[in-house]
Amino acid sequence: MSAKRSRPWFDRLNERLEARRTGAVWRFLNIRRDESRPFEIDLASNDYLRLTSHPLLIERVRQAALRRGVGSGSSRLVRGTTEAHAALEARFAEFKKAEAALLFPTGYMANLAVLSSLALGDDLIVLDKLSHASLLDGARLAAERGAVVRTFAHLRYERLDALLTAHRRAHPDAACFIVTDTVFSMDGDLADLRMLAALRDAHDACLIVDEAHATGVLGPCGQGLDSRGLADVTISTASKALGSLGGLVSGPRAVIDWLINAGRSFIYTTAAPPTQVAAIDAALDVIEREPKRRERLAQLSLAIRRRLRRLGLPVRMDPTPIIPIDVGSAECALALAAHLDAHGIIAPAIRPPTVAPNTARVRLSLHCELTDEQVERLVFALSTFDWAQLR
Amino acid sequence: MSAKRSRPWFDRLNERLEARRTGAVWRFLNIRRDESRPFEIDLASNDYLRLTSHPLLIERVRQAALRRGVGSGSSRLVRGTTEAHAALEARFAEFKKAEAALLFPTGYMANLAVLSSLALGDDLIVLDKLSHASLLDGARLAAERGAVVRTFAHLRYERLDALLTAHRRAHPDAACFIVTDTVFSMDGDLADLRMLAALRDAHDACLIVDEAHATGVLGPCGQGLDSRGLADVTISTASKALGSLGGLVSGPRAVIDWLINAGRSFIYTTAAPPTQVAAIDAALDVIEREPKRRERLAQLSLAIRRRLRRLGLPVRMDPTPIIPIDVGSAECALALAAHLDAHGIIAPAIRPPTVAPNTARVRLSLHCELTDEQVERLVFALSTFDWAQLR
Repeated sequence: MSAKRSRPWFDRLNERLEARRTGAVWRFLNIRRDESRPFEIDLASNDYLRLTSHPLLIERVRQAALRRGVGSGSSRLVRGTTEAHAALEARFAEFKKAEAALLFPTGYMANLAVLSSLALGDDLIVLDKLSHASLLDGARLAAERGAVVRTFAHLRYERLDALLTAHRRAHPDAACFIVTDTVFSMDGDLADLRMLAALRDAHDACLIVDEAHATGVLGPCGQGLDSRGLADVTISTASKALGSLGGLVSGPRAVIDWLINAGRSFIYTTAAPPTQVAAIDAALDVIEREPKRRERLAQLSLAIRRRLRRLGLPVRMDPTPIIPIDVGSAECALALAAHLDAHGIIAPAIRPPTVAPNTARVRLSLHCELTDEQVERLVFALSTFDWAQLR
Repeated sequence: MSAKRSRPWFDRLNERLEARRTGAVWRFLNIRRDESRPFEIDLASNDYLRLTSHPLLIERVRQAALRRGVGSGSSRLVRGTTEAHAALEARFAEFKKAEAALLFPTGYMANLAVLSSLALGDDLIVLDKLSHASLLDGARLAAERGAVVRTFAHLRYERLDALLTAHRRAHPDAACFIVTDTVFSMDGDLADLRMLAALRDAHDACLIVDEAHATGVLGPCGQGLDSRGLADVTISTASKALGSLGGLVSGPRAVIDWLINAGRSFIYTTAAPPTQVAAIDAALDVIEREPKRRERLAQLSLAIRRRLRRLGLPVRMDPTPIIPIDVGSAECALALAAHLDAHGIIAPAIRPPTVAPNTARVRLSLHCELTDEQVERLVFALSTFDWAQLR
């Protein structure tokens, strides 16, 4: 073992680790203890509707495990497509008002398949710079096969327009793919779907949106921000508002057929377990039957944002459960997170490289079971922080 | 909706689909009915130890769902690392005799993180050509950031040696990463780990092995083919012999720390659900307590391979549960699979592009609960196939 350790690749790895350790960018795993502290307020999860522990999901997972097992034992194309998989996909397509839908084990793998399989050489993939890492990785896989990949500064659609125009001029026959999150995970702000659809139309492009933080939360029935179906292809995740794990692509039948035939992260992976399928199906039941969860979450977001603005904090009024409090440096973000922690409030400091340099922040992720008393405690904790130290 | 459908990207997609449909390469989802036929023999799954429906896994999943929920609600770095995650990783590291281990939601994502994060510009990643798609995709991500990626013909280690020598000459300071499956998924044959370790030593390289089809199946205690710890980094999956879903990387602490800091498919994804952690932990219990499953599987493989050779079939004597019957053309593979199906035996025809042109095959994946009577039926079915049609 010690012989291996002195190899060049290993020495260099240790040097790179050491360089990370010395900055305020070192990442390590904090273990969440089974016994949470009394009165703890969790503003660190994406479990917006509190479905991870909903009795209906738990019961359906139990039933599925008993009836169909805890794993699916093979890939979707070989033997892993059960009646439950097919029924969930049909239901989800209807929920999204799309022709068809396809389930992946994770949202990350869904994004990889969509981004890496649709574009050919000379095609353009252009993404909002703050799109999720999995969209950027999928685009990188497409780039490796010849597609042109560009990003535009966050929400700067005039820049997107210019990139599309330039590419169309150089490659008149190329296809163009516009890619964005609908709700941005670190900022909680929204893409402008009407503007993007207009640009899509003007450039004969394809609009691909990731509704990871919107499905279950936004829209009249929780379908997401794109409740009018403006996008061509939509990716959702089951690991946030839906409370479990999985990725779902919805769109035209042809896109789904193509993913089945050419999406490597669909073809060459084991099917999502029956338990996962059951959890997602149960989550859709809850979203349908308990709109109050969604409504309460929206009210909380509005109320908390108003209160924080009254404290003088630079908080926008976006209708999402993600509220960033920008503080600038990584050190300040850590100080604010520690202050909140001392008040029993768990909210993560988000630092570079996850966000751009000098835009470190504490991110509050709300959930629908926050009580009014907990909101008061949050506002009080924030009001007692020494904001002067940030200057 | 109809306006969208006439766009260039969509028309071209339909043309590509049409081209696929006309060949014998069209892929579509067969739905596995809830009620299986009586006397059906399943040789299509990777559930080698039949753990997907093991009572201990089902019970532990139920308990975990009740206690910790069906989803983890956030990424590992934010709030998704429970005591159960940490305990499983410590246990798995011990099982693999490694310093540390790290759990990913899927094996695919584990492979992406390992392959895409360790190599820098000028470094060489060299893979056996039949390595799993996720390893190749991970290498493509590394290539996009400057690493050199090469493949060598299956098991042709003299070619690997030449590639390493040439790269070392051109880039004396570069790190070299040798990558392979230990058991190949479509051939059921083995990598030669002693030979690979010798090449690793000779070239100061790093040896990365994917034990997806070996963990739980091979080795004295089911640790995999690399029971002596020759590899530097090992990736295992929980979706085959372990019966559920998940990817596990084991290796030196520094490698695990690096994945936590730089593995995009680790950092930017929701943690594996508590139910998944419980299923894997229970699977390790079964592997420890019920060695008979592993032993029976090995006996079956040996016995069936002998019987098939006596029928004159070109079957190798590899000690794995994957037995390919090579027939050449995609049409012949479909004919043989249909013949077996008529005898109640489910085994997939594996066709290009999953395998190389003219190497289509039917793949038998054994499991430990096959009865002697089922083996007789398999042999009988194969003996009654009209092999002459293949010529």
